[in-house]
Amino acid sequence: MKVYAGVDIGGTNMVCGLVSELGQVLAKVKVPTNAGEGSAAVLDRIVDMVRELEASYSGWDAGSPRIAGLGIGVPGLVDPGTGYSQYSSNLGWLDLAVRDVMEKKLHLPVVIDNDVRMYVYGEALYGAGIGSRHVLGVTIGTGIAAAYVQDGQLYYGAQHMAGEIGHFRMDGVNELCACGRIGCLETISSAGGMVRQARKALQQGEPSLLFERFNGSRLQELTAADLSNAYDRGDTLSIRVMEEAGAALGRALAYGVMMMNPDRIIIGGGGALAGERLLAPLRKELLASVLPQYAEQLEIVVAKWNDDAGIIGAAMRMKAYETSPSDYRRTGERR
Amino acid sequence: MKVYAGVDIGGTNMVCGLVSELGQVLAKVKVPTNAGEGSAAVLDRIVDMVRELEASYSGWDAGSPRIAGLGIGVPGLVDPGTGYSQYSSNLGWLDLAVRDVMEKKLHLPVVIDNDVRMYVYGEALYGAGIGSRHVLGVTIGTGIAAAYVQDGQLYYGAQHMAGEIGHFRMDGVNELCACGRIGCLETISSAGGMVRQARKALQQGEPSLLFERFNGSRLQELTAADLSNAYDRGDTLSIRVMEEAGAALGRALAYGVMMMNPDRIIIGGGGALAGERLLAPLRKELLASVLPQYAEQLEIVVAKWNDDAGIIGAAMRMKAYETSPSDYRRTGERR
Repeated sequence: MKVYAGVDIGGTNMVCGLVSELGQVLAKVKVPTNAGEGSAAVLDRIVDMVRELEASYSGWDAGSPRIAGLGIGVPGLVDPGTGYSQYSSNLGWLDLAVRDVMEKKLHLPVVIDNDVRMYVYGEALYGAGIGSRHVLGVTIGTGIAAAYVQDGQLYYGAQHMAGEIGHFRMDGVNELCACGRIGCLETISSAGGMVRQARKALQQGEPSLLFERFNGSRLQELTAADLSNAYDRGDTLSIRVMEEAGAALGRALAYGVMMMNPDRIIIGGGGALAGERLLAPLRKELLASVLPQYAEQLEIVVAKWNDDAGIIGAAMRMKAYETSPSDYRRTGERR
Repeated sequence: MKVYAGVDIGGTNMVCGLVSELGQVLAKVKVPTNAGEGSAAVLDRIVDMVRELEASYSGWDAGSPRIAGLGIGVPGLVDPGTGYSQYSSNLGWLDLAVRDVMEKKLHLPVVIDNDVRMYVYGEALYGAGIGSRHVLGVTIGTGIAAAYVQDGQLYYGAQHMAGEIGHFRMDGVNELCACGRIGCLETISSAGGMVRQARKALQQGEPSLLFERFNGSRLQELTAADLSNAYDRGDTLSIRVMEEAGAALGRALAYGVMMMNPDRIIIGGGGALAGERLLAPLRKELLASVLPQYAEQLEIVVAKWNDDAGIIGAAMRMKAYETSPSDYRRTGERR
């Protein structure tokens, strides 16, 4: 059995996994990203993780090469064709030749891509997307982004920037986004956006069960999980914030549905842990906003491998390149 | 040289053209659709048009077959795979086997598709889309619809319903749409929508240069061309209606751009005749609504063959099927 390595570089942690050619995670390891130490240190830590997993895993076939290749999901703007991380505000990377550097360090073939595309690719082909030909996958985390997989092929667009639904400008939204613009979807519907909305309401004195525990300097400790807990205890503030978040995301996804006509939407990322609290208003607004013909055959599901889809997708992207360079080239266009 | 026939079935008229394999219109003929006479009469009139063009055109190569095949653009929901017009409210068609009927009548290979996809396919490959790999085409007419062509391939979606941007629900829009829902983009941004908005404002007594000529029973005579004329004379009502129409369409297209990342947008249909009156506010809102990275490499252009793109696209769709059935099948999936 062939084994690939997949890496998901996050703002806080990096995870590296050994993934079978069937998309099963055989082993994984997690280390802090510490992007502040510079890109060379981050890439060296990835090499260490790959070597550590390779050494510790005992399932290698006798005589066959061990890791067949490495896929890496990088946040921000990535050109999978050149293998460059073009810009990552999270990591502070600019025009970094990640693929070439890693190929030299590891003596393995490497593919890189945007982390959300890797995640959605993993879910679409090996997770909640199995059985669907047209998958729109969305990750709700610090921000919100989407990717599209049709018949097993990732869709990229002209500058590999397809899927930035987090920056859809929504009417009635007046928050400043990290991108510098006003009214982006992710300012209210991402996990971070929901927390900021709740903090703002608490500061403005809106009544809430959260007030007792989170006031003054402790306001910064409030998390999305706290919102879910308060929601379950009937807290009107938390219910309002999550319903507004779900409805705005539902409206944005309705645009995506009428534009692309997927048959399945996969909701993933940390925000998916809110479950029906977020999905119920999302589904309601989405189904009310699309023509009924779209709603009839559309499934809205949560991710199957929320923790591992990023590494599964990265590893299987490497497999896709290896097994069918021409198919990969159609979209990822490795040079 | 091979010659194909292309038909564009409209609500009022049908146009049939002879189109060279290079996408040039060699001859064309137009007849009333008269959908009220029933589908059999409409299809017979198409047969007559094809035969008439074939007989009158003198450029046939000696000894070679004349028309190589026929493509037909049908309004409404079309399944190009089965060749059925599934539903057309304009024509009153429901589950009509257009392709099979026409193949039997003409003894020619036939492909059918939605009229907007045919139009955008024609523009993308033989018109304003030349040189672009990722084309988002929009037609502004009675309604608004879009289609997407990547690397010469039409995008369909799971139920060939991709591109229904005319039914994007826009905040602040409260008009009833022909689809039965409230707030659809096309209620204010289509040619018909702009005229209805102007009529409504006139009825409500909004001051306008149009009032003298279009009041009372004459209000029904107001057309989109009248709005353009009044716009040019500085009519505040016409300027407001067209600017709102352009801005709403710009916002909707911004969602399409961030979702799909095209490098060119082609604006066509009767509404495109409004030119910069509509395009200026459209461009302004679109560019203000997308992340700047999208705007940098995006061209927004008007259609090159506004009158003929439908027949060019239909004929060239037939050529695409004939010359590369497997490529056609990837998307259109002729059975």
